[in-house]
Amino acid sequence: MFTRLCKSVAQKGSQALLVTRALRQVHTGTALCQDGAKIPAGLWKLGSLNHVAIATPDLEKSTALYRDVLGAEVSDVLPLPEHGVYTVFVKLDNTKLELLHPLGDNSPIQNFLDKNKNGGMHHICIEVNDIKAAMNDLKAQKIRCLSPEPRIGAHGKPVVFLHPKDCAGVLVELEET
Amino acid sequence: MFTRLCKSVAQKGSQALLVTRALRQVHTGTALCQDGAKIPAGLWKLGSLNHVAIATPDLEKSTALYRDVLGAEVSDVLPLPEHGVYTVFVKLDNTKLELLHPLGDNSPIQNFLDKNKNGGMHHICIEVNDIKAAMNDLKAQKIRCLSPEPRIGAHGKPVVFLHPKDCAGVLVELEET
Repeated sequence: MFTRLCKSVAQKGSQALLVTRALRQVHTGTALCQDGAKIPAGLWKLGSLNHVAIATPDLEKSTALYRDVLGAEVSDVLPLPEHGVYTVFVKLDNTKLELLHPLGDNSPIQNFLDKNKNGGMHHICIEVNDIKAAMNDLKAQKIRCLSPEPRIGAHGKPVVFLHPKDCAGVLVELEET
Repeated sequence: MFTRLCKSVAQKGSQALLVTRALRQVHTGTALCQDGAKIPAGLWKLGSLNHVAIATPDLEKSTALYRDVLGAEVSDVLPLPEHGVYTVFVKLDNTKLELLHPLGDNSPIQNFLDKNKNGGMHHICIEVNDIKAAMNDLKAQKIRCLSPEPRIGAHGKPVVFLHPKDCAGVLVELEET
C-alpha cells in the first residue's frame, strides 16, 4: 500500500492533495516518497472513544453509584482472569465506562490502586481501523508502544497501549475495530 | 413532580412498574412514597459522555500528538480566562477530548499539574437533561457536589462537579444539555 501510494503521488503530482483532502479524518502523517513529496503515511483512521477505564478499590460501591444514583445501565461483573481484572461496563449514550477491579495476584491495575487509594481514571481507549499501520506510524514519530506487537484485549480484539509520557500523561489504548 | 408521581404510584399500583420500565435509561432512584412504594426519584436522565478533559503542561506538543500523529481534527487554542484555562478540542467520532493548559495565576488545573508533571486525565463530563433534579437526587444519596448551585461552564451551560472521593476517585462533571 505504501509503495503504491508513493508511486501514485510521484506520478500524479498535485492530485495527491485532492486525495488527501478526500480522506478527511483519515490519518495523514508526514512520511516522504523518495522524491521528498509528502504522502499519506497510512490509511488508518482514528475512530470513536471506545471507553474510559476507571480503576476502583470497591467495585460494588462504584457500580452502585452509576446504577442506583446516576441511573445508568450497567453490566454484570465480568471476571477476566487472563487480564487480571473484574470489569463492569457502564453504558452511556455514546460510549461506555469500564470499572476495573484487581483479580488475582498480578493484576495490572494493582500498582495504580496502590498509588491512588480512592481509584481513578486508568486509561482511555480509542478505536482505529488498522492497528499495525497505526503502530508503524507511531513508532516512526517516536511515540512509544508498550508492546512490540498488538495483543488481544479484553474485548477479544487487537490492542496496544501507548506510553503515557508520550501522550500528555494519559495511558492511551488503541483498539482495532 | 415528586408529589404527583407519588400519588400516581399509590393510586395506580402496579402500573408504576410499567411506567418505570418505559422510562428506560431515565434515572430511577429509591425514594419512597408515604406508603413505602418505590417511585422514580426524578425524571432526569444521564446522557452522553460530553468530553474527557486532559490537563497538559505542553499544549502545543499534546495538540500535535492528536493532530499530526493520531490524525484527529483539532480546534484552535481557545483561551477561557474566566475558567483559568486554554482549551483545545480534539474531535473523535462520538465525543471529544479537551486538552487543558493553565491560564493566569489561579488556574484550577495548576495544582493538578503540580502533582502530575506529565499531565493526565483531569475529569470526565457527562450530560444530564436536568441538572437541578440530578443535584437533588445526588445530595439525597450523599454524593457531594462541589458547589451548592450549578455554575456556567466552559460551554456556556450549567455544570456541577461531583466529589472525586464519592465517584471512584474520578472528578465527574455533569453538564445540562
